[in-house]
Amino acid sequence: MTEYDDRISPLHGAGGEMMGKLLAEHVLPHFAASQVGRIDLSAMDDGATLELPVSGELVMTTDSHVVKPVFFPGGDIGKLAAAGTLNDLAVMGARPLALSLAVIIEEDFLMADIDRIIQSFAETLAGSDTPLICGDTKVMGRGEIDGIAINTAGIGIADPAIGDAGAQPGDVIMVTGTIGDHGMALMASREEFHLDTELVSDVDSIWPMIRSILPLGGIHAMKDPTRGGLAAALNEMSSKSQTTLELDQSKIPVRDDVQGLSDMLGISPLEVANEGKAVLVVDPAIADAILETLRQHPLGKNAAIIGHVGTEYPGRVVMTTDVGGRRFLDMPLGDPVPRIC
Amino acid sequence: MTEYDDRISPLHGAGGEMMGKLLAEHVLPHFAASQVGRIDLSAMDDGATLELPVSGELVMTTDSHVVKPVFFPGGDIGKLAAAGTLNDLAVMGARPLALSLAVIIEEDFLMADIDRIIQSFAETLAGSDTPLICGDTKVMGRGEIDGIAINTAGIGIADPAIGDAGAQPGDVIMVTGTIGDHGMALMASREEFHLDTELVSDVDSIWPMIRSILPLGGIHAMKDPTRGGLAAALNEMSSKSQTTLELDQSKIPVRDDVQGLSDMLGISPLEVANEGKAVLVVDPAIADAILETLRQHPLGKNAAIIGHVGTEYPGRVVMTTDVGGRRFLDMPLGDPVPRIC
Repeated sequence: MTEYDDRISPLHGAGGEMMGKLLAEHVLPHFAASQVGRIDLSAMDDGATLELPVSGELVMTTDSHVVKPVFFPGGDIGKLAAAGTLNDLAVMGARPLALSLAVIIEEDFLMADIDRIIQSFAETLAGSDTPLICGDTKVMGRGEIDGIAINTAGIGIADPAIGDAGAQPGDVIMVTGTIGDHGMALMASREEFHLDTELVSDVDSIWPMIRSILPLGGIHAMKDPTRGGLAAALNEMSSKSQTTLELDQSKIPVRDDVQGLSDMLGISPLEVANEGKAVLVVDPAIADAILETLRQHPLGKNAAIIGHVGTEYPGRVVMTTDVGGRRFLDMPLGDPVPRIC
Repeated sequence: MTEYDDRISPLHGAGGEMMGKLLAEHVLPHFAASQVGRIDLSAMDDGATLELPVSGELVMTTDSHVVKPVFFPGGDIGKLAAAGTLNDLAVMGARPLALSLAVIIEEDFLMADIDRIIQSFAETLAGSDTPLICGDTKVMGRGEIDGIAINTAGIGIADPAIGDAGAQPGDVIMVTGTIGDHGMALMASREEFHLDTELVSDVDSIWPMIRSILPLGGIHAMKDPTRGGLAAALNEMSSKSQTTLELDQSKIPVRDDVQGLSDMLGISPLEVANEGKAVLVVDPAIADAILETLRQHPLGKNAAIIGHVGTEYPGRVVMTTDVGGRRFLDMPLGDPVPRIC
């Protein structure tokens, strides 16, 4: 074992022989089985090719991930980076065609941790039948980046794409599962809190679940409630459609331990990130069929109808609270948990 | 002016109202004129849509940029991030369809610098008629990231895509201009060297130039010699095609001031990054026409034939040096200049 074998060195990001060795030994083997296209990942070219789909709309999305800690209860930055982009495609109603993977790594980062992260990323992609087709590796010096940052971009095909602006009065609002798990699990895992909880992130690719409901039709708007949580996602949907999203707080599924920690910290579970959930606004005529189909998927077993679309306060979200009152659920200034994703 | 107006705060990357304000005021206005697709950048959805091209191969690529300093002679990280991905598409023979833009910013980064960077990025994209369609913003704390890192991914359409493995014995090797400008300009600008030179980076989108030669055909392989420079690009091309790339050093265009600084620092201009150049391996029957067409473009006025493809040492690059000897030009371990791009 040389000095370069167990930790990342600046040469691993410098475009030469050392970078080639890193990619050949620690990255390419994880993706050998999933290649598509005439010029694929293993060609290590300036880009990769994909056969043009026959019909539909192309969808593109991107996310960078700077989550801290890199390994957290229920997942790691590799799974998060894959799921984050797969989920953005999924809530656009898009079948994922391919992802890119661009990593920025701090010098001296452990190669064993790189291996764990890449393996986790690869497994998440494989679970959604999606190839990695291109990537990039940069190394920054010690103290220039806190560990590792990962960007993924993804392209998919939808027929047609589903936006987040299509809510109509009378529509039904549903979520695919419990809310706040990722944000509160991250919060609890931060060493400064010294909390001993069983909370785990919900991070996962929701494409296999979303794929099952797309043929039913009737989805007017869909979004994944990441940073800013359900509150941010719903406010965007109401603002863009100039409808009123009316929620019944008692219907919003929140795990007891998530609620408990939220109460203790004074942070609303509705304002923290989820990484394996979607919020849907659907045609009332098809709502029960969608709910039933969601519940048949392991990730959707706690799916629930949480409200409906009205007209009383255009562009606002109104919530009937557990204690019987009614209040606006406002757009948060930002997610209360830093580096949540 | 509030405390949030002139510097980046953590809330600017937290998915809520503050992030929306940052994007609405400092990002979206730069791209208003270039939108395409049914769900475009201004929709601020989970992704964006593009109409499916009629024919060709899809090409996808990605690069992260961590250049230091962020503003350097001849450009900045915004121009570099746009050109880097446009150029990767260009050397695949792909017309750019769309780019993504994902920024990771350090808390307290100057908003005025964000504005300069985004404007530079937008101008470079506009110069290649390419829309920005999606993006992501993350903020890390002070000391968690050194300033700003930018990832771009791009998709394009080629008919067909040109790889970097197609060199054939008898082919002609050419470069589109002077070699080593970016790497040596970056090197000279680093404050630790206290050098007073006129060197400027060549960073620019080469798509407008490459577009002019694609109709001529006859391009067997193409690459942009970024990290690791011309030496890395040529070694990849020879290795993948198992041919011998035979260079005449006297034909490789290198600016006098670049050569001078290289000699002083003991760094070969052939091993440092270029950010506005391509190296081509072309059919000898069409080589003169390609060269002539390249030279008609401002970025290609110093284009030159620098060698030819042989068979003597499969997978190796051989160079006849200025002093008359002949030696292998090896794959560098890595670019000698850290954070060059």
